[in-house]
Amino acid sequence: MSTANPVKITDTTLRDAHQSLIATRLKTEDMTELAHAMDSVGFFSVEAWGGATFDSAIRFLNDDPWQRLRTLKEGLPNTPIQMLLRGQNLVGYRHYPDDVVEKFVEAAGRNGVDIFRIFDALNDLRNMEKSMDAVKNIGAHLQGTISYTTSPVHSTEGFIELAKDLYAHECDSICIKDMAGLIMPEEARQLITGIKREIDIPVDLHSHSTSGISPMSYQAAIEAGVDILDTAMSPFSMGTSQPPTESIVASLIGTERDTGIDLMKLRPVRDICLAVKDKYGTLVNPISERIDSDVLIYQLPGGMISNLVSQLKEQDALDRIEEVHREIPQVRKDLGYPPLVTPTSQIVGTQAVLNVLMGAERYSNVTKEVKDYVLGLYGKPPGPISDEIRTLIIGDEEPFTGRPGDLLEPAYEKMAAEAREEGIVTKDEDILTYILYPAIAPSFLRGERVPEEIPRMVDARAAPAGVIPSSMDVEV
Amino acid sequence: MSTANPVKITDTTLRDAHQSLIATRLKTEDMTELAHAMDSVGFFSVEAWGGATFDSAIRFLNDDPWQRLRTLKEGLPNTPIQMLLRGQNLVGYRHYPDDVVEKFVEAAGRNGVDIFRIFDALNDLRNMEKSMDAVKNIGAHLQGTISYTTSPVHSTEGFIELAKDLYAHECDSICIKDMAGLIMPEEARQLITGIKREIDIPVDLHSHSTSGISPMSYQAAIEAGVDILDTAMSPFSMGTSQPPTESIVASLIGTERDTGIDLMKLRPVRDICLAVKDKYGTLVNPISERIDSDVLIYQLPGGMISNLVSQLKEQDALDRIEEVHREIPQVRKDLGYPPLVTPTSQIVGTQAVLNVLMGAERYSNVTKEVKDYVLGLYGKPPGPISDEIRTLIIGDEEPFTGRPGDLLEPAYEKMAAEAREEGIVTKDEDILTYILYPAIAPSFLRGERVPEEIPRMVDARAAPAGVIPSSMDVEV
Ligand SMILES: [Co+2]
Ligand SMILES: [Co+2]
Repeated sequence: MSTANPVKITDTTLRDAHQSLIATRLKTEDMTELAHAMDSVGFFSVEAWGGATFDSAIRFLNDDPWQRLRTLKEGLPNTPIQMLLRGQNLVGYRHYPDDVVEKFVEAAGRNGVDIFRIFDALNDLRNMEKSMDAVKNIGAHLQGTISYTTSPVHSTEGFIELAKDLYAHECDSICIKDMAGLIMPEEARQLITGIKREIDIPVDLHSHSTSGISPMSYQAAIEAGVDILDTAMSPFSMGTSQPPTESIVASLIGTERDTGIDLMKLRPVRDICLAVKDKYGTLVNPISERIDSDVLIYQLPGGMISNLVSQLKEQDALDRIEEVHREIPQVRKDLGYPPLVTPTSQIVGTQAVLNVLMGAERYSNVTKEVKDYVLGLYGKPPGPISDEIRTLIIGDEEPFTGRPGDLLEPAYEKMAAEAREEGIVTKDEDILTYILYPAIAPSFLRGERVPEEIPRMVDARAAPAGVIPSSMDVEV
Repeated sequence: MSTANPVKITDTTLRDAHQSLIATRLKTEDMTELAHAMDSVGFFSVEAWGGATFDSAIRFLNDDPWQRLRTLKEGLPNTPIQMLLRGQNLVGYRHYPDDVVEKFVEAAGRNGVDIFRIFDALNDLRNMEKSMDAVKNIGAHLQGTISYTTSPVHSTEGFIELAKDLYAHECDSICIKDMAGLIMPEEARQLITGIKREIDIPVDLHSHSTSGISPMSYQAAIEAGVDILDTAMSPFSMGTSQPPTESIVASLIGTERDTGIDLMKLRPVRDICLAVKDKYGTLVNPISERIDSDVLIYQLPGGMISNLVSQLKEQDALDRIEEVHREIPQVRKDLGYPPLVTPTSQIVGTQAVLNVLMGAERYSNVTKEVKDYVLGLYGKPPGPISDEIRTLIIGDEEPFTGRPGDLLEPAYEKMAAEAREEGIVTKDEDILTYILYPAIAPSFLRGERVPEEIPRMVDARAAPAGVIPSSMDVEV
């Protein structure tokens, strides 16, 4: 049934779901059939590129991300392909110069991305502007993102203001990105209602089932008039991934907000997903699939918790995990309550471990990233940092208050020349691969990297630490 | 925060959750610590007895169900213990005489049951009346149940009428029992709103996460004013079990419907559950934990699907599963659309297999149970059975239209004498154990049964068929 006001569905199976559940290890060869099957469903979009997939493709899978994008485009002629872009960080972990940002967006659009979801970990618009302009320049769909979190300096009103700012920057839609699965039904209702009262572009809710609450929040969002929901096919749903596509579709059949998607068309997609899940089953950490009620108490994204476990195990200090759990909110407070998402999740988590393990005085040992953060090199912290903490971390250095991207010289032409000289450029896009991952790109582009094998063990808990989903890369 | 209108929580971990996920195998020894920890939480009730637990305790675990009840009562001095009673079927699979029903309810109350949830698979009140009267006679809390299903002969209005009938029978509360996880958010809202408009006793929603929809329906139910929600502690939640207790509690913090339960009090309960889950992990069939979107298409409870797989494998006919999937709704239609719950789920499922495997003519081979069903011995089918089907199944025999219980002679005294003669009666309750399970009780009461061991295999998919949750016992 098609209605006047259907809920639209963005399926995340090909990006966020496998990033969340199997450490971003899905290979291009296993995406092809899936993309074809998905194309006839009638999704608003398929999120299939960006985030950690670029890094993982070249680092672990010997897959060319650009070739993957073209392959996906062939499989999805009727369905927009969506990517997740980390603002000025693109698909990396640091800021890139403006010329690189422009070239990257152009190349992504040229090779098949139709919708760009752009976020910044600090919700600092200055880190998103350059890539947003680039998306508008190529005429693609620009989705501006609110990185959702809860803290004394975050509020529904503040997020609505951010939505208005994104709207003023000509976004075509707004995404509420709840990477830790923290948004409560009542908050979702108020935020969506508030945004829709102010601006007239579609609103998307993206959450994770880590805490088991996201299906409830989706229900509240539907009632509040959300336009788009992010879901994942059931075999790759729940746990640290999204709520299940089939369930959301089924729950709306016959209602005013019926998606119009035929459940029978999802069945072959599901069957392919089941086979793929079987193939990659050993990569699934049971912890990723279970409801994590700690996230409700400590507000830590699931991926972060499992990474802390690994870090502490290496230090033979697993018995101090509770102290670290308690220290993380403290560090987050000290740093002005950044949302915990790539890269701030790593920054906060690692510093909390140091504060606990390094003896009496907190911040006696400070990472370079925390220094850079306090120096303003990541952008403007959401809340103030006290004089005391700032002095502990950067002494009497003066924080930078400008746009971080302004500190970077153009780099594209220089690095393009380098790459050509190395003889690793077969197509223009290889230059971007090199600029983004200069340490890995040469061996990758020369075809010297050996793809990682899927572990054969039955029990993923026994898998090597690097293989299970352990990163604090919780942008998802 | 305590509010004027808190949502109350019935935690099902000790009954439905382990029945749904680990084939009802939780031993009394692993319930003790859990019960103690649960007692301080502030649950409306803890569902901890009845359903399949009685059968499983004596058949597989060498646990005395009556002793279990007394042990639980010691652990839960401040929390009402709730049991699931199958109306005239008690905790068995056939109707028992009225005198046995009375004695059973008395014994259950005496040993610790505070709240009796009573249902009948056909929603035939005549199968519930005797046990309901018995509950009122002992002054316990009587919860009347609507066995929820969807069909052309079931409607919101019909269920509201049933709720009114249950109210007229002096029920203290009403349970909407959605054993297959079929209830959609909009239906939950309308049904709860409708019932609450008509009657002024608390309404409880009991659903299963099989289809992934129950958290959404719970959210809609909360908004519609549901009084009680059934949940399970997160390690034993989701899949074919209930939505997670911690998530429901957390989602309501600070709202008008705050449960008043402290998340920190749930944490020790969760930790014990994690340890218990580890111990019984090999019993968990991964199929039980995953979202089953087939339930949305065929409306089959999860437990039924896995049982069909086993049945067909035994017949070397697994390739015909799709035919059976399609035949089940057909058989259900032929039989007047019974809800698929113990025992009708078994009756319909087995007949569907026979219809598919036994060649050309449907119903050329009919089970005794289907004959009895059509003869009216299970009660009144929800919808009419056509003359054609009736003739195919029972020829020109005349169906019985009275109360099935009226066909049964009193049996308690006679069987009590038998049991005493056999020398197996140590306490009065042993007589009931004997009457309910005469084939097993003698060896059990003589202490001759050997408790089943938890399989040591890492992968439960390799476990023997009888050990994984495979029954069509989907009353849950
Ligand atoms: Co995400
Ligand atoms: Co149940």
